[in-house]
Amino acid sequence: MGKDKGPTFNLKTPKGTRDWFGSDTLLRDRIFSTISNVLKRHGATALDTPVFELREILAGKYGEDSKLIYDLKDQGGEICSLRYDLTVPFARWLAMNPEVRNIKRYHVAKVYRRDQPAILKGRLREFVQFDLDIAGVYDPMIPDSEIIRIICEVFEALGWNGRYTIKLNHRKILDGVFAVCGVPEDKIRPISSAVDKLDKMPWADVRKEMVNDKGLDGEVADRIEKYVMNKGSRELLNTLLQDEALNANPIAKAGLDDMALMMDYLEAFGVLDKISFDMSLARGLDYYTGVIYEVITEGSAGVQASSTEGEKPAKKGKGKPSEDDDRSNDPSVGVGSVAAGGRYDNLVGMFAPKAQIPCVGISFGVERIFSITKALLEQKQNGAALRSSEVDAYVMAFGGKGFTGMLKERMDICQKLWNAGVKAEFSYKLKPKLPQQFKAAEQGNIPFAIILGEEELAAGKCRIKEMGLPEGHPEKEGVEVTLDNLVSELQTRLASKQDGLVGSLAEQLSSTTV
Amino acid sequence: MGKDKGPTFNLKTPKGTRDWFGSDTLLRDRIFSTISNVLKRHGATALDTPVFELREILAGKYGEDSKLIYDLKDQGGEICSLRYDLTVPFARWLAMNPEVRNIKRYHVAKVYRRDQPAILKGRLREFVQFDLDIAGVYDPMIPDSEIIRIICEVFEALGWNGRYTIKLNHRKILDGVFAVCGVPEDKIRPISSAVDKLDKMPWADVRKEMVNDKGLDGEVADRIEKYVMNKGSRELLNTLLQDEALNANPIAKAGLDDMALMMDYLEAFGVLDKISFDMSLARGLDYYTGVIYEVITEGSAGVQASSTEGEKPAKKGKGKPSEDDDRSNDPSVGVGSVAAGGRYDNLVGMFAPKAQIPCVGISFGVERIFSITKALLEQKQNGAALRSSEVDAYVMAFGGKGFTGMLKERMDICQKLWNAGVKAEFSYKLKPKLPQQFKAAEQGNIPFAIILGEEELAAGKCRIKEMGLPEGHPEKEGVEVTLDNLVSELQTRLASKQDGLVGSLAEQLSSTTV
Repeated sequence: MGKDKGPTFNLKTPKGTRDWFGSDTLLRDRIFSTISNVLKRHGATALDTPVFELREILAGKYGEDSKLIYDLKDQGGEICSLRYDLTVPFARWLAMNPEVRNIKRYHVAKVYRRDQPAILKGRLREFVQFDLDIAGVYDPMIPDSEIIRIICEVFEALGWNGRYTIKLNHRKILDGVFAVCGVPEDKIRPISSAVDKLDKMPWADVRKEMVNDKGLDGEVADRIEKYVMNKGSRELLNTLLQDEALNANPIAKAGLDDMALMMDYLEAFGVLDKISFDMSLARGLDYYTGVIYEVITEGSAGVQASSTEGEKPAKKGKGKPSEDDDRSNDPSVGVGSVAAGGRYDNLVGMFAPKAQIPCVGISFGVERIFSITKALLEQKQNGAALRSSEVDAYVMAFGGKGFTGMLKERMDICQKLWNAGVKAEFSYKLKPKLPQQFKAAEQGNIPFAIILGEEELAAGKCRIKEMGLPEGHPEKEGVEVTLDNLVSELQTRLASKQDGLVGSLAEQLSSTTV
Repeated sequence: MGKDKGPTFNLKTPKGTRDWFGSDTLLRDRIFSTISNVLKRHGATALDTPVFELREILAGKYGEDSKLIYDLKDQGGEICSLRYDLTVPFARWLAMNPEVRNIKRYHVAKVYRRDQPAILKGRLREFVQFDLDIAGVYDPMIPDSEIIRIICEVFEALGWNGRYTIKLNHRKILDGVFAVCGVPEDKIRPISSAVDKLDKMPWADVRKEMVNDKGLDGEVADRIEKYVMNKGSRELLNTLLQDEALNANPIAKAGLDDMALMMDYLEAFGVLDKISFDMSLARGLDYYTGVIYEVITEGSAGVQASSTEGEKPAKKGKGKPSEDDDRSNDPSVGVGSVAAGGRYDNLVGMFAPKAQIPCVGISFGVERIFSITKALLEQKQNGAALRSSEVDAYVMAFGGKGFTGMLKERMDICQKLWNAGVKAEFSYKLKPKLPQQFKAAEQGNIPFAIILGEEELAAGKCRIKEMGLPEGHPEKEGVEVTLDNLVSELQTRLASKQDGLVGSLAEQLSSTTV
C-alpha cells in the first residue's frame, strides 16, 4: 500500500449499490440458508460461476436491455461484462458440459444492471438473485410439480404459513384461449401482456388497452373476459375440460391435460390446496413454453392483519413492507410477487443448439422476501430492533476496591463456553466497569449475562442472569450456579428460551399467524 | 432475449476464472460455514460490500500492484473498479460509518486481480478471501489472543486437529533484534524480508542474500542468526527477557512484554500449546505493527502420513495437496501457509485519518484450505469420489407385468420424508426401471434406498436398503418396515450411520488423525 494521499475522494459506494451489515446481513443470511436447505432436501446442488463472462456470451441475449449490461474496460486480453442474470451463465455452463444431461441446480449470487436506481424503493444496480432450475428430459409435469412443492416448503420454512398464494397457469391454455376467442396470431403476445396486468388494474382498463391500444376486436375481448377472469382449482379445470371449443383446440387441450396431471401430482405431494389456478396469469417473459407460476403475498395488508391477534399495533413506519415492496428489480419476479417461474424448453437450445435441454425453474425474489420478513419480525417484536449478532452470553465481572478485573477468569469461562459451542463474548478491557459490560450486552441483544464476583468465584460459583427481566421478577438479579454446572445450566436456559432468538424463521414467526 | 445467432463464440469462462460445481461446491460451502460458525461463536458479524468500488477509493492503495486492478468501462457516470481485496472496502466502510468505533467483522467474498493466472497451480484471477478483523481501542493483547484462539477453533472444526501449527512473532521484537544487531535503519525492511524466507531456504542462502544482495555487514548477519533461528514457547521468551541487549532496546522490550502478556492469555484460553514462537517469522506486508502469525500445515507430508494408519494408501495422484498447494494467490497468506495475519494499527487511519482505528486480523486461505481438506477427505475415502449432493434416500419402485410405476406412491413417500426434514429424491419417470433407479442412487452416493413393491405396499410395508453393503451381509436385500414406521426407522439408521456422510468435517476427518 502506498502513502496516505488524504481522503480527497467521495466516501460512498457506487451509485445503485449498498453495504450490508449487522441485523440486515444476519437476516439475509438466515433467509438464504433457509431457502438453500429446502433445495438441498430435494437434491439440488449449487453452481457458482464467475461474476463476469466473455462479452460475446451475453451478446444478443437481452434485447434492448443489453444497454444495461456493465462492461469491463478493455485492459488487453479478453473483453468481458458483468453477468446480467444467472440464466445465461447456467446455459453457458450446460453447453460447456455436454455430459450433464439432467440436473437440479441452484445459484444464489449478485447480478448487475445499469438501471436507473430507485434507492427509496430499494431498486438497486447490484442485487441478489436466487434461482433453482431442473433441467432434463423427463415424463410430463413431474419436476414441474416438485417445483411447486419446493415453493411451498420454502415459504413454510420462512414462517410465511398462511401468508402466500401460488398462482398457477399454463402458457398453452392461455394461447389456446386466445386462439379460440379469435385473437390473430400476431396479437397473441401483446394481448397476453395486457391480460397479465389484471392483477393491478380492473378488466375495463385492460379491455381498453386491448381494443384501443392494441387494435383488438371488442367482441374478441369480451370472449377473452369469460375465460381469463376465472380463478379456482379442480372445479375450474373440470369446467374447462368440458368446454367444447377449448377441447377442440389441440394447444389448449395439451395445456389442460398437463394441468390435470399436475393437479394429481400436487395432491400426492400434499400441496394442491396451496395453489390458485388463475387464468389471468400470463408472465412477461416470452420464453415460457408450459406451466407458469407466481407467488404473491398480501403484502402490507397481510402484515397488518397479523398484528391484530392480541398484540400491540406495529410501531408507526415499521411492519409495512409496502414501503419497499418494490425492492426487487428482478423482472423475472412480477410486481407484487415474491417468486416466479415456469417451464422454458427452448431457452438453453437457443443458446447452444447441440445442448438443447428442457428446463423448469423458479426465481425467488430474495430482496423483497427480505423486506417482508424483516417487517414481520419487527412487528412480532413490537418494533424492537432485530439482533445484529447471535451471541448467547456475555461474560462479565465486578468487584469493589482492589478489583483486578478477573480477565483470565473471564477468558477461562469463555473458553469453556466456546468449547461447548455456546456463543460468548467478554469485554476487551482489563478492568471493565459493570455498567459498561451491561451496556455491551444490551446493545448486542445478548440474552444472558454470566456474572463473576470475587467472593462467589472463590466459592466456585457465579451467576447466570437473564437480560431484560422485569422489575420484581424472582430471577431479576440472576441465579447462582456452580462453575462446574455453568455450561449445562446455561444450555438448559438457552434451549428453553423459546422466543425464537435462536430458532428457525418458521418458529420465530409462527406465533404471529392469524 | 433475442434470436439465436448460433454459437460462433468461445464457450469458456474468462481467463483465470472457473465454475464451481458438484462435490467441490458442496465441500467449499461446508468449509465456509464451518469457519463462519466459529466466527459467530465469538460474536463476529458479517459485512458485505459491492463487488466494485469507486476507482479513487482503490487508487494509491496497492503500490505497483495497482496495475492488476480490473477497471469497469466508462459507460457514463462514475468510474469504478472491481475490489482487489477486502481490507480497503472494510476501511472505506469504517470511514463512512464513524459511529462504529469497535467491531468484529468477517467478510467472505471474491476478489479480482489481473495477475498472470497459473491454472495448473490453481492461481486464479477471481478467488475467495475470508477475512476476520477486530477493530477498536482495547487493552493490550486481548483481542490479539482471541484471534489465536479463533484460529485454533477453526482448524479443529475443519478436522485438522494435529495437522497445523501457528507460528507467532512480533514486529517489535524483530525490529528490536535488527537494531540491537546493528542493521542500519534503511535496511530493516529488506533484511526482514530476507529473514522471512527462512521457511523455504537454509540460513546460508539467506545470509548470502543479506550480505551479497543487500549489502549487510557479515558480522551483523551472524548476530542476526543467533536470534532468528530460535523457535519455542515460554522458555524462549524467558531467555529473551534475560537478554540484556534486547531489554535495553525499548522497541524490543515493548514487543517482549506484549508477548509475555499474550502467552498468559493464550494459556487462559487453553491454546498456548498450539503456538510456536518463531523468531524467523517476518511476514511480507509492511503495515503490520504488532503481533504477526501464520498457520502452517505439513502439507503433503502431513496428508501422506495420515494414510499410514491401517488404511490403504491413497490412490495415486490423490491425497497430494502439494500439487495445488499454491492455489491461493492471496499475498496476505504466505507460501505454504493456510492462514495469516497480525496487528495493523495505522492502516485504517492511512485511509481515512479521522477514522483511525487499530485493528488485528486474520485472513484464511480458503482456496488452499479447500485443496488440502479435499485431499484429506479423498484419502479417508480411499480415493473414492466425494459426494456431490447430500441426499439421504432415493425412493424407488419395482414390479412385474402391468407395473404402474407407483409414481403417486413414490411422491407420497417423498412428501412424508421431506416433511420430516429427510433429504430425498425419486425418478422423474412414470415407469422407471429398477436398475436405472439404483444407478441414480449410486451415482449420487445416496446412502439409503426406499424400495416400494406392489405386494409389500398393499400390506402397508416397504423396504429400507442400505446401499453398498457387501455380498452376504444379512441386510444386503434391505429390511422390511411398515409405512407408518418408515420415517423413524430411516432417521434412526441415518443417525447411526456414523461414517461422517452427514456429520461435521471434524467428525468426518477425526478418525484419520495419526
